[in-house]
Amino acid sequence: MSTSSQIDSRERMIRSAAILFRERGVHGTSFSDVLAHSAAPRGSIYHHFPGGKAQLAEEATRYAGDFIAGGLAAGLAQEDPIAAIRDFAALWRGILEQSDFSSGCPVVSATLEGERTPAARDAAGAAFRRWEQLLAQAFGRQGVAPQRAASLATLAIAAIEGAIVLSRAERSSAPLERVCDELETLVAAVVRDG
Amino acid sequence: MSTSSQIDSRERMIRSAAILFRERGVHGTSFSDVLAHSAAPRGSIYHHFPGGKAQLAEEATRYAGDFIAGGLAAGLAQEDPIAAIRDFAALWRGILEQSDFSSGCPVVSATLEGERTPAARDAAGAAFRRWEQLLAQAFGRQGVAPQRAASLATLAIAAIEGAIVLSRAERSSAPLERVCDELETLVAAVVRDG
Repeated sequence: MSTSSQIDSRERMIRSAAILFRERGVHGTSFSDVLAHSAAPRGSIYHHFPGGKAQLAEEATRYAGDFIAGGLAAGLAQEDPIAAIRDFAALWRGILEQSDFSSGCPVVSATLEGERTPAARDAAGAAFRRWEQLLAQAFGRQGVAPQRAASLATLAIAAIEGAIVLSRAERSSAPLERVCDELETLVAAVVRDG
Repeated sequence: MSTSSQIDSRERMIRSAAILFRERGVHGTSFSDVLAHSAAPRGSIYHHFPGGKAQLAEEATRYAGDFIAGGLAAGLAQEDPIAAIRDFAALWRGILEQSDFSSGCPVVSATLEGERTPAARDAAGAAFRRWEQLLAQAFGRQGVAPQRAASLATLAIAAIEGAIVLSRAERSSAPLERVCDELETLVAAVVRDG
């Protein structure tokens, strides 16, 4: 029987893992780090995550994917895909700048360490596909043909994720800003021309 | 005094490290892995890399950055930036498919682990800036204005690097192909319209 505080500690651990993965990656984040960050009791690890680190990594990646999908879907509900892309990029810019460019996207971290934690990589793949689908559907509602909507959506997600990496390496938001400017111009032109 | 075989073993170790970083990352690659992959003698580690793993990581990242810059520059010498972008993407597609989507870009790996190996992250930042500059200069020679050339170049590098991550996560080259199609269409339009 789970008490509400046990449920809270499980959710806190998943959220903490996702936050720590942004900076340290999956392998670089220990259970001790997650316990310290979430203030969860040590005994809760194998109670909540009988599959150990691999299970925590998978659940944290899925949590991050769902969290971001929720933000994207809310932004896209206004039927202004350019504003939604700008908000999506602004979220990452905030994470980059608040961490002095040490933190990026936890879903990318889970992908790069996928040979060691394949279930987390699969969750990362599902997250990217979901984000791409949300954007593609929004472009479709603006009159963009399905195949073009799909490739434009993949470009937007890939370019922003890549720009986060470039910004971390160059320790500047300038790459992310340049990519956003290009995406806004491109999406406006494609939506205008149908 | 260095013999030619000592020089060879140093270069082989750097090249092996760059190859291993593509799949395992910097922290996930041990000196033993590099020795096994390069067939270099164990005693050569601290002779060649007195700064230890951090020095090897920095030099391997710089090697990868230079190697890719050389390929980009050669492709761009034909004054056909679209063909050069296609060749750049084809290089990554080959690495993805030959590794069953387990290997990506070592410069991205060095970036994500930058808090532990900041000199390698700095080498990653220099590599991305160099690739962006090479592309921007090529767009400039096609008549694209400097600021637009810079943002288009950053978009192309960021989108391809991001697409490599999406392709690894989704275990399919489809994201990279969609991104390439979009980049070709966009670059053709910008070059045509000046």
